[in-house]
Amino acid sequence: MISVLLVGKGNVATHLYNAFNHIDKIKVTQISSRELTKIPQADVTIIAVSDDAIAEVSSKITNDFVVHTSGSVALNDLKNGTKKGIFYMLQTFSKDKKVDFNEVPFCLEAENENDYTLLETLAKSIGKKIYTINSEQRKTLHVAAVFVNNFTNHMYKIGNDICIENNIPFEILQPLIKETASKIAHLSPEKSQTGPAIRNDQKTIKNHLNLLDSNQQKIYKILTKSIQSSID
Amino acid sequence: MISVLLVGKGNVATHLYNAFNHIDKIKVTQISSRELTKIPQADVTIIAVSDDAIAEVSSKITNDFVVHTSGSVALNDLKNGTKKGIFYMLQTFSKDKKVDFNEVPFCLEAENENDYTLLETLAKSIGKKIYTINSEQRKTLHVAAVFVNNFTNHMYKIGNDICIENNIPFEILQPLIKETASKIAHLSPEKSQTGPAIRNDQKTIKNHLNLLDSNQQKIYKILTKSIQSSID
Repeated sequence: MISVLLVGKGNVATHLYNAFNHIDKIKVTQISSRELTKIPQADVTIIAVSDDAIAEVSSKITNDFVVHTSGSVALNDLKNGTKKGIFYMLQTFSKDKKVDFNEVPFCLEAENENDYTLLETLAKSIGKKIYTINSEQRKTLHVAAVFVNNFTNHMYKIGNDICIENNIPFEILQPLIKETASKIAHLSPEKSQTGPAIRNDQKTIKNHLNLLDSNQQKIYKILTKSIQSSID
Repeated sequence: MISVLLVGKGNVATHLYNAFNHIDKIKVTQISSRELTKIPQADVTIIAVSDDAIAEVSSKITNDFVVHTSGSVALNDLKNGTKKGIFYMLQTFSKDKKVDFNEVPFCLEAENENDYTLLETLAKSIGKKIYTINSEQRKTLHVAAVFVNNFTNHMYKIGNDICIENNIPFEILQPLIKETASKIAHLSPEKSQTGPAIRNDQKTIKNHLNLLDSNQQKIYKILTKSIQSSID
């Protein structure tokens, strides 16, 4: 039996709690970060609070092994006095949407092999995509995630803005969005690249720029240039 | 029985040929744009060649009703002497991948109702997402598609570059990419936006910039600014 203490009441903590709660060999407890005066003992304490609060919350925890779930906070930002680790799940969690943990990549780090094995056992009990990722790698992985998630979503936002302005239903773009995302599961992004930029189709590029506002133009130009320089 | 002549031997023409070929009430013929000396008669002639070649190819066609399949070429760039129309499919086609035409949005335009009805009948015979899109809308739709497809794919490319540089398997980002794309089917891109830019998390933004090369930095900055100004 492994005892797990989850600190936090947000999306990540709650989804994790629900997942662990179904596993026989895991005994899981969840507390809010405001209830740190009397902390239950546990084999692993998982801090799933906002990035800024991790240092302070961890400094109040006296349990033996403390990990956090953040993609951008370093291992040494944990301020507990004993063993440290990372239990980072690279996925976007929504409050009301069920998480399929089999599709969630677990990025694990610990200071020694025993601790790592414990984290691995936990991750394997609810998921199957397990990766050993050190703090340096995790930092860069988090930036990569900003590009493929945050910035990609902003591309969708601009597409949506253009549709709204021209009385076009945004749903018309959904199949293309879906196909663009699934294409790179079997073809590299480099080989998947299509469009006027990579073809250096100046006439179409000029026509497109004429249809955009100044902010959209700036983005269009810089991304077109970046696509073209990627094949130099 | 509707007779269809497809001009072109590329991905779009070939996928369309295969789809129409399964429909009893359609008689379809496919020719290359180099075989225009003797053109078979047809109720609809669909030109599916590169954008630059549409004007010239169409000028050689004497059939009554001629349409093209391009997102960025105007109706009046068709240089046939008689009736014109558009049969634009908003999807990315790959040579070796089967197309599910039920998932392809057909954007149709014609000069009169009878011609439109004919195009609609054709589209409905192989698909089910049919939209009336005029030339002005189609031009802007094509720009929107560049953002959600070409530029999004470039975001994947940058994510992949970062992974390669740090010995991280790119597959680790695939579930996030998939989820980002499917999230906006039920939540607007505006409401789906997460990450350091929208939170105005200056510390994380600064850390991220330090990990990027100068081209990536430029893109990171301009997109962060654009995300932030979208909530002003």
